[in-house]
Amino acid sequence: MRRKIGLIGAGKSTSYLIAYLLDKSDKEGILLHIADQSFDQLDPKYINHPNLVLHKANMLDDQQRSKWIASMNLVISMLPARFHHLVARDCIDSRVQMLTASYVSDEIKAMEAEISAKGLLFIFEMGVDPGIDHMSAKQVIDRIKSQGGKMLLFESFTGGLVAPQSDDNLWNYKFTWNPRNVVVAGQGGAAKFLQEGTYKYIPYQKLFRRTEFLDIEGFGKFEAYANRDSLKYQSAYELDDIRTLYRGTIRKVGFSRAWNLLVELGITDDSYRISNSKGMSYRAFTNMFLPYSPTNTVELKLRHYLKIDQDDIVWDKLIDLNLFKDDCYIEIDNGTPAEILQEILSKKWSLKESDKDMIVMYHQFGYELNGEFKQIDASMGVIGSDHRYTAMAKTVGLPLGITAIQMLNNKFNLKGIQIPIHKDIYEIVLKELNEYGIHFKERECEYLGYNPEVIGL
Amino acid sequence: MRRKIGLIGAGKSTSYLIAYLLDKSDKEGILLHIADQSFDQLDPKYINHPNLVLHKANMLDDQQRSKWIASMNLVISMLPARFHHLVARDCIDSRVQMLTASYVSDEIKAMEAEISAKGLLFIFEMGVDPGIDHMSAKQVIDRIKSQGGKMLLFESFTGGLVAPQSDDNLWNYKFTWNPRNVVVAGQGGAAKFLQEGTYKYIPYQKLFRRTEFLDIEGFGKFEAYANRDSLKYQSAYELDDIRTLYRGTIRKVGFSRAWNLLVELGITDDSYRISNSKGMSYRAFTNMFLPYSPTNTVELKLRHYLKIDQDDIVWDKLIDLNLFKDDCYIEIDNGTPAEILQEILSKKWSLKESDKDMIVMYHQFGYELNGEFKQIDASMGVIGSDHRYTAMAKTVGLPLGITAIQMLNNKFNLKGIQIPIHKDIYEIVLKELNEYGIHFKERECEYLGYNPEVIGL
Repeated sequence: MRRKIGLIGAGKSTSYLIAYLLDKSDKEGILLHIADQSFDQLDPKYINHPNLVLHKANMLDDQQRSKWIASMNLVISMLPARFHHLVARDCIDSRVQMLTASYVSDEIKAMEAEISAKGLLFIFEMGVDPGIDHMSAKQVIDRIKSQGGKMLLFESFTGGLVAPQSDDNLWNYKFTWNPRNVVVAGQGGAAKFLQEGTYKYIPYQKLFRRTEFLDIEGFGKFEAYANRDSLKYQSAYELDDIRTLYRGTIRKVGFSRAWNLLVELGITDDSYRISNSKGMSYRAFTNMFLPYSPTNTVELKLRHYLKIDQDDIVWDKLIDLNLFKDDCYIEIDNGTPAEILQEILSKKWSLKESDKDMIVMYHQFGYELNGEFKQIDASMGVIGSDHRYTAMAKTVGLPLGITAIQMLNNKFNLKGIQIPIHKDIYEIVLKELNEYGIHFKERECEYLGYNPEVIGL
Repeated sequence: MRRKIGLIGAGKSTSYLIAYLLDKSDKEGILLHIADQSFDQLDPKYINHPNLVLHKANMLDDQQRSKWIASMNLVISMLPARFHHLVARDCIDSRVQMLTASYVSDEIKAMEAEISAKGLLFIFEMGVDPGIDHMSAKQVIDRIKSQGGKMLLFESFTGGLVAPQSDDNLWNYKFTWNPRNVVVAGQGGAAKFLQEGTYKYIPYQKLFRRTEFLDIEGFGKFEAYANRDSLKYQSAYELDDIRTLYRGTIRKVGFSRAWNLLVELGITDDSYRISNSKGMSYRAFTNMFLPYSPTNTVELKLRHYLKIDQDDIVWDKLIDLNLFKDDCYIEIDNGTPAEILQEILSKKWSLKESDKDMIVMYHQFGYELNGEFKQIDASMGVIGSDHRYTAMAKTVGLPLGITAIQMLNNKFNLKGIQIPIHKDIYEIVLKELNEYGIHFKERECEYLGYNPEVIGL
């Protein structure tokens, strides 16, 4: 009898996952069940696939969900992260394995003992970031350690961007994933990381002014701003004694300097609502963040306030968003500034049908081996094929698909809640990802660290 | 039989209140009962006053408190604001009137119906700010309206500062009230106000760069930054159609520009804790907010990061706080940056025994009367007498004291929860405050508003 994989959610990010599992379905003896309220995003060519069973249902309905899950051998949840605990509860009750690309939440963590006790394996964070970042980083770290090296520095950067061939706006950016995360990025506390043994903190108001530059072979020059908590995986990666630990988000050079103007203006704020925002012109919205003046234009006030030279490219970037238009109107009502900004940006930064997206990832590993300081840089880039088969769907979907089959085949000698930092997992998954063009180029380079003088002597 | 006033709390801000009530006690037939765990702050000359009864007790103990309150005719609570609901509950149960200088919280508001139903009067916000600001503003607004005027603009500013004779540091500032409120001022959302009919928002990162200047006759030049919500009392003041509504906090000129550097650095953040802060040098603490450099000093990095010229006075202000000292050590453990900064500032900004404090308040009222645009500016300044009889204690304590006696004498024809925006209240209280040297100087001036061109024609 065929094993049943239950996929909850058939949205945009599942294209590669579904294609992968159906392609393997005969060989692996799998039936793929997908539950969702709509299958509009599903590639039409798979609709009549003999190993596919579609279940049109609301998976937030407890009864429907638990009954459906009970009949599966493995469940992959693509629900919004806040609902994973519902799926996890049913999986525990029905002794079904679970897999997802989302972060392990506190709610999920609280179920750990129960999951282990039943001998179940739940794998979380098996997408791109988190997911491929864990696997590719841990593989190199483990190798360095197995050679007797001592890790000194680990910096890791990921970006979901528009592909060069579709990069046609002044910001060199389009929304390729959840736009809200982009608009509120960095809010809610200082960014924290380790630099040469010292904890460092960057407040939100400086986050986009303290970027690092990166050169990714074959993909060009980028910049990165620090993630909220670079130390989150310090223990999981076994880097407790490391001197420098930094995780960042990649953008094309110049993005952050312009984005910082929106931060300074206060237009990214998500903490209060603007009453009656609906129908307000973009110009009036922008003007809410500027002092009143009976004589100066909104443009002049903003340039003066944020000290922007008239021939500075950032000025053109702001103009390009239509922020000064009095004939563009806000559609959402009572929106937070961030929600309104997201609407404004979506008019300019949405992918066109023909646009392709891109995922880039970059790691730096600094270490000491036999008294010598060394560094390995590893980079990866994936460009989407088309509007459906995006780089994002590929880098999220393939790790999930590969892992799902390995889990069904009991290839991992693990139980409880796991993330892919185990050699067992990452060796198998990275090897197969390589066949699909997802691989890291490594190069050895001179270790600079942050302290060339001391190191150089 | 003498009426009993129960005062909960005998701390620093009660000196004038106690003196006032005891001075009036014979004439008014009052016994003053004070409950606290310590009476160290009490002026020794009152300890044996025949109309004073001290009750050493923990007023957070429910049983002790409710029994004590039940025996009073009126209770004045000087507890921290978060405990007022406990006092209010007892007052309702025992049908005792209540008076305090604190804001009306949501918890208190929820008791409104019950208080009214029992025919009780609770007066809140009867201190200086809130308190004297309500009364002095509403008096002028009501007068303008009674003359047929239409309010166009209301701006109101208050500051608790160090008196000129004790103003001996570079920041022209000392803590005269709760230091924590100063350190975290403006955090937790944008400042909101109305300017010429348009809502305006200032994010925290710009709050101290968008100050207004004020000239207070006899007290000199000041600046003010916007309060979080300038519109809080729009309805209470009956200013629903007003075009400009702004409330701000007064500092000496130059304070905000320097304070903004601490904001930019991220050192005022109260949202996360720094592990093992205890014993860390001030210099190491400052360095946590700066990029790593093997060659540049903390001083140079900070000057570069915040773009401070070496001959700029703000640089001397930072030096003066000892932020770069490697032989000054943090005492609190696991502090937030804001808590640590408060400790650092307290070493420099605490009032000396001989220092005097000062309260300044400034209102601007713009209005239209018989087709003419007019403006009244009103200002008040009070300087403390000494370390015990401070301006803060005077401006908080006298309104409370005066009001307490009026409440006992049933002079206010009000019930429920009230703040002093009623003519009944403010006429009596302001008149008596005047006898104690707390009064506003008014002057008529040209109405400028924010739109001199339109108005001027």
